[in-house]
Amino acid sequence: MPDTEGNAKGRSVRATLTARPRRGRVNLAAIDPSETHGIKRYQADERLLADEEHIMSLQECLHAEGKRSVLIVLQGMDTSGKDGTVRYALRGLNPQGVRIVSFKAPTPSERRHDFLWRIKRQAPRAGEIVIFNRSHYEDVLIAKVRELAPPRVIEARYGIINRFEADLFKHGTRLVKLFLHISEEEQRARLLARLGEPTKHWKFSGNDISERRYWDDYQSAYAAAIGRCSTEDAPWYVIPANRKWYRNWAVSQILIETMEDMKLTYPNPHLDVRALKKSLKAAA
Amino acid sequence: MPDTEGNAKGRSVRATLTARPRRGRVNLAAIDPSETHGIKRYQADERLLADEEHIMSLQECLHAEGKRSVLIVLQGMDTSGKDGTVRYALRGLNPQGVRIVSFKAPTPSERRHDFLWRIKRQAPRAGEIVIFNRSHYEDVLIAKVRELAPPRVIEARYGIINRFEADLFKHGTRLVKLFLHISEEEQRARLLARLGEPTKHWKFSGNDISERRYWDDYQSAYAAAIGRCSTEDAPWYVIPANRKWYRNWAVSQILIETMEDMKLTYPNPHLDVRALKKSLKAAA
Repeated sequence: MPDTEGNAKGRSVRATLTARPRRGRVNLAAIDPSETHGIKRYQADERLLADEEHIMSLQECLHAEGKRSVLIVLQGMDTSGKDGTVRYALRGLNPQGVRIVSFKAPTPSERRHDFLWRIKRQAPRAGEIVIFNRSHYEDVLIAKVRELAPPRVIEARYGIINRFEADLFKHGTRLVKLFLHISEEEQRARLLARLGEPTKHWKFSGNDISERRYWDDYQSAYAAAIGRCSTEDAPWYVIPANRKWYRNWAVSQILIETMEDMKLTYPNPHLDVRALKKSLKAAA
Repeated sequence: MPDTEGNAKGRSVRATLTARPRRGRVNLAAIDPSETHGIKRYQADERLLADEEHIMSLQECLHAEGKRSVLIVLQGMDTSGKDGTVRYALRGLNPQGVRIVSFKAPTPSERRHDFLWRIKRQAPRAGEIVIFNRSHYEDVLIAKVRELAPPRVIEARYGIINRFEADLFKHGTRLVKLFLHISEEEQRARLLARLGEPTKHWKFSGNDISERRYWDDYQSAYAAAIGRCSTEDAPWYVIPANRKWYRNWAVSQILIETMEDMKLTYPNPHLDVRALKKSLKAAA
């Protein structure tokens, strides 16, 4: 196990951070967003850097194999670090084999389809890693909190999502669903920091503050979404994300463990190497 | 100028490597693929690493501004390092704002459109950096060498390409066209190395060797394509690419110089910072 030195419990990071639902919910309040599981910052930073080449070679093998794919779903409250995770935790990835899809509020034309329509169109191709920055889960998160759909419609969506994800899995897509878990206090500090930095003002929206009044409702919607949709084949991970260095390390480890678990292998086209070398050397 | 320490001539890398056509051709034979312009490997490697954050911040500003875009066109013979350039020279780029499009031989359905149809669909959105790994130039390269279209059709394409690229420029897209220039001998060495490495065999195709007999024809087609289509607004750069470290450094410098030249600025939405801070601190 590559993580034993960094993980006080000697367990894989995946096992440590997998969401464990009880009665269809996870108890987010019981998970400390500042948790670091005994890992020191210098260990995490060193490891993240050292693993860049490893992630790149796993990804190359996924591409070479050309049969399966990986879908990373990133969710979290505003300022929880979705963009930063792509930028820092996943920077070992070769952009050539990775596609990031940011889902915003659906456009009028998207609204005329079922909620998974725009999602399915962005599913990974064989050999590809796709990152959803926000996802179909918004349809059971903001949609629930702000009552954008009737409760029975929201209720039906959990099952629809589970069937969709089970189909992806059957077709060779490994799902890695990450909830970046921050505290309300940490969000306040990050918004204040953003206000103090003029080059970040373009990111700021009045909504960032007004949505905070729904904090508890969002936590409750996340508890239900993660609880209802964390399955063996498409698990949710709750990433303590108050500390960015821990978040980056944990995300990177989970991706590595998932891809190692896929037992990827390079195709072997059985070339006649001797003959090919000879013809290469012969040609003028 | 950020490049003076590394460039013996004290000129910008863009100026040094810009293709200078004479009578509609560039003289590729006069450009040494092993040229390094007096830069040492350790300087190039250090600089590449040190510039990663700089590239990332230029890119963030491009995204924040949200008005213009960058299109990098990568061309070169097999094994010239197109994939390696994306992986190493451009690794400072945040994958969130970059999209790589690999153009293969056109599909039957693509063939039923004009040659720029599939290209135009992939043009960058405002704020985006797009990398074309091979491009519309194949339609005046392999198409010319292997006579996939009549000479008069090929001949007309240079002008069509120039008008297309001029339109992109007018709409705010900066074009960076890179020819990775390697020698025939270097290609032989790289193909031999690939044959010696079983995890690279999946990349190997019999064509890789048989196409070598057209080496001179390809060089001649490149000389014409670059010569006819290197314009002030959409310049071609000839990158000596026998040495990967030089290639990576040069590509990274050209991208930096191009984006610095764009004078990107962050939008200033004139937030009432005091009031926003107050409301953030007040809310429970």
